[in-house]
Amino acid sequence: MKKKKAVILLSGGLDSSTTLAIAIEEGFVPHAMSFRYGQRHSCELEAASRIAAVMNVRKHVVIDLDLRKIGGSALTDNIDVPKNRDEASIAGEIPVTYVPARNTVFLSYALGWAEVIGAHDIYIGVNAVDYSGYPDCRPEFIKAFETMANLATKDGVEGRCFSIHAPLVNMTKAEIIRKGVSLDVDYALTHSCYDPGPDGAACGRCDSCILREKGFIDAGIKDPTRYCG
Amino acid sequence: MKKKKAVILLSGGLDSSTTLAIAIEEGFVPHAMSFRYGQRHSCELEAASRIAAVMNVRKHVVIDLDLRKIGGSALTDNIDVPKNRDEASIAGEIPVTYVPARNTVFLSYALGWAEVIGAHDIYIGVNAVDYSGYPDCRPEFIKAFETMANLATKDGVEGRCFSIHAPLVNMTKAEIIRKGVSLDVDYALTHSCYDPGPDGAACGRCDSCILREKGFIDAGIKDPTRYCG
Repeated sequence: MKKKKAVILLSGGLDSSTTLAIAIEEGFVPHAMSFRYGQRHSCELEAASRIAAVMNVRKHVVIDLDLRKIGGSALTDNIDVPKNRDEASIAGEIPVTYVPARNTVFLSYALGWAEVIGAHDIYIGVNAVDYSGYPDCRPEFIKAFETMANLATKDGVEGRCFSIHAPLVNMTKAEIIRKGVSLDVDYALTHSCYDPGPDGAACGRCDSCILREKGFIDAGIKDPTRYCG
Repeated sequence: MKKKKAVILLSGGLDSSTTLAIAIEEGFVPHAMSFRYGQRHSCELEAASRIAAVMNVRKHVVIDLDLRKIGGSALTDNIDVPKNRDEASIAGEIPVTYVPARNTVFLSYALGWAEVIGAHDIYIGVNAVDYSGYPDCRPEFIKAFETMANLATKDGVEGRCFSIHAPLVNMTKAEIIRKGVSLDVDYALTHSCYDPGPDGAACGRCDSCILREKGFIDAGIKDPTRYCG
């Protein structure tokens, strides 16, 4: 039987790289989609390309997005990325790194591409446990997007329904790392930092770095991340 | 009391221009959003700018989209636009001019912008009566998008809910034209054709031209459209 295709949203970070490995484990031919959206940390796109290459992604497209025209986020605008927050602060509120409607835009593109290439499975590495308080990382958002997607598309209305997979949604960062290591994900190739140094090294102090570092400690796995200084 | 802002998706066509007039009639300060998405009929963007100017839109942003990388539509690819179809054929199937997930992508951007500027009302000129068979023009799609939007966003989860308005959804083309004329929309400034001539004149034979021309006849209103030849 011919293997089915899936579209995987691949940022080049730890979570999306693990999600890609899970989609492959689940038997799909992986098609990866990344976005250049004016993010400060565009070196994550280089990480996405490295990951796509070593994990034998069939096709990797990088979409140019115009989110800077919308503005409103520390990830795309001249707003400082918060540093050295503890875990409670990270979990407690929606931070300035929130990009309005980002995952909605990403999933909409993935949906369009999936329909064109005949894929009906879309993977996204959102996580509602060790997350940064973003509303579009919760399971109820994913479910609502799936319902909408099947009303929005030719395939959906004709009964060839789309599934949005969020396999990490209820996992801790440590569980995600252990899962990825069991699937041979090389986390040294991934990039998570929101505010990297000029050579791409991680700052070690933004929310994303703090959650990542703690994940490796909790998992009891050596952290391969290259930090600044 | 300070007037509320609304985001209006403005293609520069007959439907979206009428929708803009309705949003203004309903008391909103209009903010218009258009997309350059590799469409064959990019002169509709010039129409959008003309309309935005004469209707005193507060701000008009044009977003560059990368839909050509996704492909799969006669509106963005080298696929022939169908011509001279009768109304029954137009209504009977999803045509090759369908752009996968287009309205989903458009509404996602509008949602992001709305949240940044503090608008909670988004207008889209979709129509499920005299329409071209696109699934993302139906009321059930609009409703599902709204539900998703309120789970996707900071404002939505904090109770400042978004409404997606589709005031034309159950109107015939003739009713839309009569409504627009009553609101002083100058349809000579609008552009609907999928496959215009080099000078921007309408072909008169694509689905969009056929539905538009019939609308003016049914409404008993003189058609100001400039046709080729």
